[in-house]
Amino acid sequence: MLSISQKARIMPLSPVRKLVPFSDAAKKRGVKVYHLNIGQPDVPAPREALEAVKSNELSLVSYTHSAGNERYREGMVEYYRGIGVSVSVDDIIVTTGGSEAILIGFSVCFDPGDEVLVMEPFYTNYSGIATWTGVVLRPVACDIRSGFALPPIDAFERAITPRTRGIVVCNPNNPTGYLYSRGELEQLAAMVRKHGLYLFADEVYREFCYTDAPHVSCMELAGMEEHVVLIDSVSKRYSLCGVRIGAIVSRNRELMQGVLRFAQARLCSPAYGQIAAEGALRTPPAYFAGVRKEYIARRDYMVGALNAMDGVFCPMPQGAFYTVVRLPVADCDVFAQWLLEEFVYEGQTVMIAPASGFYVTPGKGLDEARIAYVLNVEDLKRAMRCLEVALKRYDGGRG
Amino acid sequence: MLSISQKARIMPLSPVRKLVPFSDAAKKRGVKVYHLNIGQPDVPAPREALEAVKSNELSLVSYTHSAGNERYREGMVEYYRGIGVSVSVDDIIVTTGGSEAILIGFSVCFDPGDEVLVMEPFYTNYSGIATWTGVVLRPVACDIRSGFALPPIDAFERAITPRTRGIVVCNPNNPTGYLYSRGELEQLAAMVRKHGLYLFADEVYREFCYTDAPHVSCMELAGMEEHVVLIDSVSKRYSLCGVRIGAIVSRNRELMQGVLRFAQARLCSPAYGQIAAEGALRTPPAYFAGVRKEYIARRDYMVGALNAMDGVFCPMPQGAFYTVVRLPVADCDVFAQWLLEEFVYEGQTVMIAPASGFYVTPGKGLDEARIAYVLNVEDLKRAMRCLEVALKRYDGGRG
Repeated sequence: MLSISQKARIMPLSPVRKLVPFSDAAKKRGVKVYHLNIGQPDVPAPREALEAVKSNELSLVSYTHSAGNERYREGMVEYYRGIGVSVSVDDIIVTTGGSEAILIGFSVCFDPGDEVLVMEPFYTNYSGIATWTGVVLRPVACDIRSGFALPPIDAFERAITPRTRGIVVCNPNNPTGYLYSRGELEQLAAMVRKHGLYLFADEVYREFCYTDAPHVSCMELAGMEEHVVLIDSVSKRYSLCGVRIGAIVSRNRELMQGVLRFAQARLCSPAYGQIAAEGALRTPPAYFAGVRKEYIARRDYMVGALNAMDGVFCPMPQGAFYTVVRLPVADCDVFAQWLLEEFVYEGQTVMIAPASGFYVTPGKGLDEARIAYVLNVEDLKRAMRCLEVALKRYDGGRG
Repeated sequence: MLSISQKARIMPLSPVRKLVPFSDAAKKRGVKVYHLNIGQPDVPAPREALEAVKSNELSLVSYTHSAGNERYREGMVEYYRGIGVSVSVDDIIVTTGGSEAILIGFSVCFDPGDEVLVMEPFYTNYSGIATWTGVVLRPVACDIRSGFALPPIDAFERAITPRTRGIVVCNPNNPTGYLYSRGELEQLAAMVRKHGLYLFADEVYREFCYTDAPHVSCMELAGMEEHVVLIDSVSKRYSLCGVRIGAIVSRNRELMQGVLRFAQARLCSPAYGQIAAEGALRTPPAYFAGVRKEYIARRDYMVGALNAMDGVFCPMPQGAFYTVVRLPVADCDVFAQWLLEEFVYEGQTVMIAPASGFYVTPGKGLDEARIAYVLNVEDLKRAMRCLEVALKRYDGGRG
């Protein structure tokens, strides 16, 4: 009688978390593990964010407004204006991280059984939230050979059924690092309008773009006011993953009224996190310039090193701080575990995120892994050397 | 085509929030509003909690473990030991407030369409979370004349259907302030075991008990290891509502594995909030003794004042900081709005929470209101004088 729910039984385990026990075991054996698997920036948070929290004068910590602190939301209006997006305070509801933004967004826009298109490979958490909300993800395949560019629109058209209600685009992309162009987004937008879909635009890596062209937000696209649901978060932008502050932004008023009702059901977002996020709005542009320069140096080194290894193919990512790389192994899940359980080179090994967890199509992405460049160049060099040696030594490969 | 979801359309609006525009308008007119409607303590948070945040040395704010910081969970094990509850770290998962504890708990234990018994009137947010998760709440009526004591067990038996999977007990109770005895809880537990139900025990007001007998946690009941899901929160205990830190505690291992999967899907609970909550564990017992003394004084004054008003009946609450009172008006929703829109006494008025929002049975609780004693005694005196004058002046009553 005391069974757990169907959703709890099928809720996917994070592909990265599955490896954590092996990583812990490696550390206990005294092996240094370079974490190429995580999506957490290593750069310090802006002083403005940290100091805002340390100098707070609260004598008790009250609930904030369910939609978020008014002053923080006003500050966000200015932030969006600065990136060329014109919204009002009423178009913004603060959430407990980008994860809750997706959870509430899906809950408001989709009924159980509704289908949402995703470009595969995609951010794993979409799977978890889809399971939670009863949404069915329909993958549209991207190709590593094109650097995971937008698939032809007819591939989306073929995936659409009478239950299709939305599409998610993550730009710049986690896990691939692909940066969608304005032309690509306009193609998507036309299809979204044609079929009356919601366009979930996950732009939490907006500040991490490495081309000369500015990032194009889906909020800038014409004629999309009712369709676009922007998913935002301060986690990556300011190295504030743990404060749990994100946002849903949309000009669709009925949708935002629905979002507010769900926001009220969970009372409010974290007060200290909102203080940090409001402080972070004062971050000087030099901070981002420095971060961008650092990530470009890491990326350039890492992609070069990967492509120099026998049988490895790595496209050049233009944004975020990840790449999905093809490795000369039959099954990256097995390889990743072997790296932690058996491999050691000069007392070190690497932890990678097998890409299979970023696919829902069975059998896809088995020879791919997501590699994050959230280590400094010196550590990256040691990590790449480990990976190179490991690939040579590994006999569970294709040969 | 761009419709919002069924859940978003039926998600209940908080009964208190509905009145906020009227309260704001009253303040704009220069009328002082005494807030008897809110569930937010006014006492300062423990210095240990506030200072822990102010003196933090983080240089970036990383994701914490999805289950919560290990050290905080170890501290919680000690806290529970102190209240007579023996649990291990693995029995505890930190959540983003008690709200998320209910959301995840319901998601793990119940499938859409499953039924959960609640004692009516009940905490409004159970409705919101039930809507979110597709759970159907089945009310079992409590009676104001008994002070909202446990209804006879056969009232529960009559409410049980083949879809019944759980029951929620809030102890001490929000909104009624009722404190369930060990005998009552054991009656409930026997029924829960007989029907193989989950027992959700919402004990977030545990420290607010005003009898000489200690609070009895459902975690203490024998033979209930698989059944009890404890919902906890630091919000009320330490005046830290805004930090958004709660917990799910259960000895049911399969259930906790399910909880962890959902916890991973939203990554982690707020890092600063966990720092505050860990600091709060060092709160000296004198803090709670002082808080308890203050609330007893407020309660005693307020209940006396209410019962002295013509046609008013207020039971004596034994816990939390609320009471549900019967007023001599036909519809408290209309009366509460009138208090804010039209009534003024010496430049002041009061805001109350109509009890209809704490019932799902249509027409119930219309002449009842929840009144919180989260004001100091001097303000309470002025608020009670306002209410007394208002009831005399009001002509939308029963007569």
